[in-house]
Formats: sequence, C-alpha cells, structure tokens
Amino acid sequence: MIGKLNHVAIAVPDLTVAAARYTAMGASVSATVDLPEHGVQVIFVELTNTHLELLAPLGENSPVAAFLERYPEGGMHHICLEVEDIHTAIEQAGAEGTRVLGNGQPRVGAHEKPVVFLHPKDMNGVLVELQQA
Amino acid sequence: MIGKLNHVAIAVPDLTVAAARYTAMGASVSATVDLPEHGVQVIFVELTNTHLELLAPLGENSPVAAFLERYPEGGMHHICLEVEDIHTAIEQAGAEGTRVLGNGQPRVGAHEKPVVFLHPKDMNGVLVELQQA
Repeated sequence: MIGKLNHVAIAVPDLTVAAARYTAMGASVSATVDLPEHGVQVIFVELTNTHLELLAPLGENSPVAAFLERYPEGGMHHICLEVEDIHTAIEQAGAEGTRVLGNGQPRVGAHEKPVVFLHPKDMNGVLVELQQA
Repeated sequence: MIGKLNHVAIAVPDLTVAAARYTAMGASVSATVDLPEHGVQVIFVELTNTHLELLAPLGENSPVAAFLERYPEGGMHHICLEVEDIHTAIEQAGAEGTRVLGNGQPRVGAHEKPVVFLHPKDMNGVLVELQQA
C-alpha cells in the first residue's frame, strides 16, 4: 500500500543555481552529494513533510543526461512513493497492467532501499519510483 | 519561508483511469471534485504526508487543456509549496530574479488560499505554485 511521498526529483543543469532559487525563499538545502553508482549529483531541498531532490548528471551513462538533452532547462524527473512491501506493490501494479521498468525486479536505490520504477506511459507520463519504506 | 509540499499536480486525460492506477496499489482516492472557477476536475490521491492532485480539464479555457494537447498521456503539471507569507515569498523570489506569472499579485487558489505561480523558466522547467499556509 502506498504511504508517503518520499521525494520529488527535479533534473537541473546546474545544481548551485537551482539550489539558490530555493534558498532565496528560505528553504534549507544540503551540500552536494555525489552518488556515482547512480550517475547523479544531488542537492536535497528540505521541506517540512518531504524533500525535493535536485539531480544533475555525474559521469557517463547518467540516467539524467538524456532527460537534460531533451529538456535543457531541467524539469520534473520523477516522484518517489513509499510502499510497505515492494514485491506486493509490483504485483498490484501488474494486476492493473502497469509495467515495471528493467527486469521487473527491485534493485537497491539511492536511499539504500529496494526500489522499482513504473513505466511512465502507464502512469500518465509520470515516472513513478516505488521505494520500500 | 518554504514549509510543506502541499501537493503534486498531475494532468491526466481520464481521471477515472488515472485514479485506478493508484487505487490498485492501495491508495485512497477522493470522489471527483469539479472546480469550474479553476477550469479543472480533480481527484485527490491521499498519501500519508501530502497528496497528489489528478487534474483533468473542465470547461473552456482550462489551464490544463493546452498541457494535454502537448502531452496527451498527461504529465507532472506543477508542485505546490506552502509559504508562511505570500507577499514575503514574492519579494524573496523576485530578489533572485524569479518571475511570478500573471500580474505578480496573489489570487485565490483552488484551496481558497492566496497563491502565485513562479515562471517555470526560472525554476528549472518546473511550474511552482506558492500557497500561503
């Protein structure tokens, strides 16, 4: 069952510039975090109930690079919803005809928890990450 | 100062189909709510810390209609961040060069609170609604 919105991920061409927009409005932001195994650099924008993840490409084959080629100014990349049990969530999604990207099995995500991504064509154009809570 | 993420709005061509994707995964969704003064029909997907708003056009001149012409399957339309004081937030955004859409003044949003929208070109391609908490 879906619980929390863990984060909204926003792809940006320049993390520092992007973060400044949010700090100007009084938001707390993290230092830049490199996640080389996921091909991204991240700055977290802390909100009181969740956070935004500003993502920039890191290294080759970054999952964000193709997105920024298409949308050079950046854009909303995905939303991450927490689920109690990732395997149950995959079954429930499949029963509705919602496809899971990749081989359909969870992998360890950027937060060290099992995740899958649902096909955006089955989720109204929205890339939805499901993360085990 | 930015506080809560109030909601993530997702434009969809068919509210019932879209909502079924989330109910299949155990989410609670609202009945369909008509907001004719805002040109949208909405179904709320309840999460434990915030909610998603599935938006479909209602009537002529709906703000969602042009978006769906461009993205017929739907897509992430905007995020809504709560701020303590909308006028202070407008000043802070302006100091960073972030433009406010329309005449720059708050209007009453779908939640009966003062809102403004920030120019997506100044927010990395993301339409950001600021709503007074």
